[in-house]
Amino acid sequence: MKMKEDKIMLGHGSGGRMMHNLIADLFLKHFSNSILNEQTDAAVLQIGSNEIAFTTDSFVIDPLFFPGGNIGKLAVCGTVNDLAVSGAEPIYISVSFILEEGFSMNELEVIVESLAAEAKKAGVIIVTGDTKVVNKGKCDKVFINTAGIGRMKAENRQICKAMNIKPGDVIIVNGTIGDHGMAVMNARESFNFKTTVESDCASLNHLILEVLDKSPVKFMRDPTRGGVATVLNELAEKIQLGIEIEESALPLNGGVKAMCELLGFDPLHIANEGKVLIVANENEATNILNVLQNNELGLQSAIIGRVVSDHPGRVVLKNETGGRRIVDSLAGDQLPRIC
Amino acid sequence: MKMKEDKIMLGHGSGGRMMHNLIADLFLKHFSNSILNEQTDAAVLQIGSNEIAFTTDSFVIDPLFFPGGNIGKLAVCGTVNDLAVSGAEPIYISVSFILEEGFSMNELEVIVESLAAEAKKAGVIIVTGDTKVVNKGKCDKVFINTAGIGRMKAENRQICKAMNIKPGDVIIVNGTIGDHGMAVMNARESFNFKTTVESDCASLNHLILEVLDKSPVKFMRDPTRGGVATVLNELAEKIQLGIEIEESALPLNGGVKAMCELLGFDPLHIANEGKVLIVANENEATNILNVLQNNELGLQSAIIGRVVSDHPGRVVLKNETGGRRIVDSLAGDQLPRIC
Repeated sequence: MKMKEDKIMLGHGSGGRMMHNLIADLFLKHFSNSILNEQTDAAVLQIGSNEIAFTTDSFVIDPLFFPGGNIGKLAVCGTVNDLAVSGAEPIYISVSFILEEGFSMNELEVIVESLAAEAKKAGVIIVTGDTKVVNKGKCDKVFINTAGIGRMKAENRQICKAMNIKPGDVIIVNGTIGDHGMAVMNARESFNFKTTVESDCASLNHLILEVLDKSPVKFMRDPTRGGVATVLNELAEKIQLGIEIEESALPLNGGVKAMCELLGFDPLHIANEGKVLIVANENEATNILNVLQNNELGLQSAIIGRVVSDHPGRVVLKNETGGRRIVDSLAGDQLPRIC
Repeated sequence: MKMKEDKIMLGHGSGGRMMHNLIADLFLKHFSNSILNEQTDAAVLQIGSNEIAFTTDSFVIDPLFFPGGNIGKLAVCGTVNDLAVSGAEPIYISVSFILEEGFSMNELEVIVESLAAEAKKAGVIIVTGDTKVVNKGKCDKVFINTAGIGRMKAENRQICKAMNIKPGDVIIVNGTIGDHGMAVMNARESFNFKTTVESDCASLNHLILEVLDKSPVKFMRDPTRGGVATVLNELAEKIQLGIEIEESALPLNGGVKAMCELLGFDPLHIANEGKVLIVANENEATNILNVLQNNELGLQSAIIGRVVSDHPGRVVLKNETGGRRIVDSLAGDQLPRIC
C-alpha cells in the first residue's frame, strides 16, 4: 500500500484528494476490475439485454436534522442523484439502518417518514432493507446506507464516460452553490448567523431526465463532497483539457457568500446535495437553460464556465477584474460528516 | 407507531421478535409496497425480460477479527448468502465503508484483502462503493455495508415464497449450528475456553446452486441473527403448519455445545454465517444430502426435522428421551453486534 498515512484521517472521507488516494491505493488496488475502475458515480451493468446503473452511499451527517432536510431525505436524494447524473432513471433503492442504543423512537420515525416521502417524490421504491443496533456510544445516533438501481437508456450510456468534450463546451449548474455545506455547518456550530441558509437537498432525477429528453449532454456529475472544484478538477484531469470558471457567473446565495467570507471557505469547495454540473456543446446551452429555469429546482441555473484548450488538467477561476487563480481539488478535511 | 419502547434497544437489532416488531410497526408502516412487504431476504425485481434479486446488509460485528474470518469476509458472505438462499446467482456487490478517524490503515488493508479474496471465491464482482470517515469516538472502528445483485432463474422464483410446503417435508441443514455466534462471543469476552470454536462464515452460493441443479427445493433461508429457531418459527407461522426438530439430529460442534451449556444459551438461537436451512419433499432428501455431503461446506449435513400438521405455527423440539418443548423465536438481545 502506498498510503502515506498509517491511520485513517478525517480527510480520507472528504471527497477530495486524500479520499481519491485512499480509493486508488487501497480499494482499487485490491478490488480492481474493469467496471469499478471506471470510477463513475454508478456502475453500469448488463442484465440480459438491458443495462442498469447501480450505486451505494452511506450517510453519517451531523446533525441529523438541518434546515432543508434530515438524514432520511438526504439518504434518498444522494443515491437518486448518483443514478440520475449517470443518465439512469432511478427505480429501486435499499435502505439499511445502523442505530445507536437509546436513540429516540420518535426522532427515528420522523427520519423514516422523510425518507418515505422523498422516495415517493423521486418515484423510487424501497424494496429491501436491514437494521443493526450497536451499544450506546458505538455509533452516533443513526447512520443510513442506501443502494440504488436505475434503468439505463442506451442513448445516455456515454454520459458517464465524459467523451467528446471539446474546447468551447459550456459548463452549466442548476443554481446556487455551497448551500448544503453551509446550512449543515451553521446548524452544527450554532454560529447564529442571522441569515438563514437552507440545504439544497433534493432529488434531481425528474429535472435531469427532462434535460436529457430535450438536449444531448456530454457529462454530468453532482458536486457533493469536495464541491464544484473537485468535480471539475477530476474532469479536467480526465479529459486533459482546461476548464475556466467565471467568478461573476457563479450563482451564490447571499448567506452562503457571507459565511464563506467570514469563515474563509471557498464556495467552490463546499458540498451541494441538489446540484448537477452539466457539460454540453454551447449550441445546446439555451435549450438546457430553458428546461432548467422552468423547473423549481433550476430557477437560478447559469453557465458558469467553459472547457478551454489552455492549461490542460487545470481549473482556473477568472474574477471580475480579469485576475486568474488556479482552483484546486479539496485537499484536507474541510467539513467532516457533511453527508 | 405502535412500538412499546420509546428508545431503540439492542434487541431491536437481534434478528428476533423485537426486530420483527420494529420492521412491522415502523419501517413497513411507512415504506409499504408489494415488493418490500414480502419480507424476503432479497427483493426480486423485473428488469426488462429478466429478473434480478437485490439485497443489502450492514455489518457492525465486534470484534472485527474472529476465528474463521473478519468483517471483510463476513460482509461478502452475508450478502452472497442472502441472494443464494433466494434462489439467485450472486453476480455484483457494492461495498460502503464507515471508518473511524484513527483506525489503523494496516488493519483496514487486511479487511479489504479478505473482502476481495472472498468476493473472488464467491465469484461476485465489486462494482461500486463509498467511503465515509467519522470523528474518533463516533463509530466503532469500521462498519461495512454491502448490497448485492443476483441473476434470478425463473425456475427458482418460488423458493422465496415458501409455497407448497406440506406435512412430511424434511428440514435439512448443511452442518453444525451456532459456530459463528459462539466464536464471536469467545473472541469478544476472552472466556479462554480451551476449545477452539471457529466461525462457519462462508459463501454458500456455489453449494446452493449445486443443490438446485439436482433437486427441487421448497424453501431456503440462512439462519443468521436469531438462529435456526427464529427462521423456523417465521416459517411455521407463515405456512400455518407445525415444525418438529429432533434434538439428537442437530449437528453440534463439541466446543459450541460446551459453551452453550456453560453460558446457558440455546444453540438454536445462535447466529450462523455459513449455514442454510432447506425444506424439501422427503423423496428429495437423499439427493440433497448427497450433494451437500460431497462439498466441504456440507460435510456434516443432516435432516434435523420435519414439517408436521400438529401445532400449526409452532416449532417443537423432541429430545432423546421423547420429551418435547416449544422452541420460540429469539426474544431479546442475546448477542449484540454478532454480524
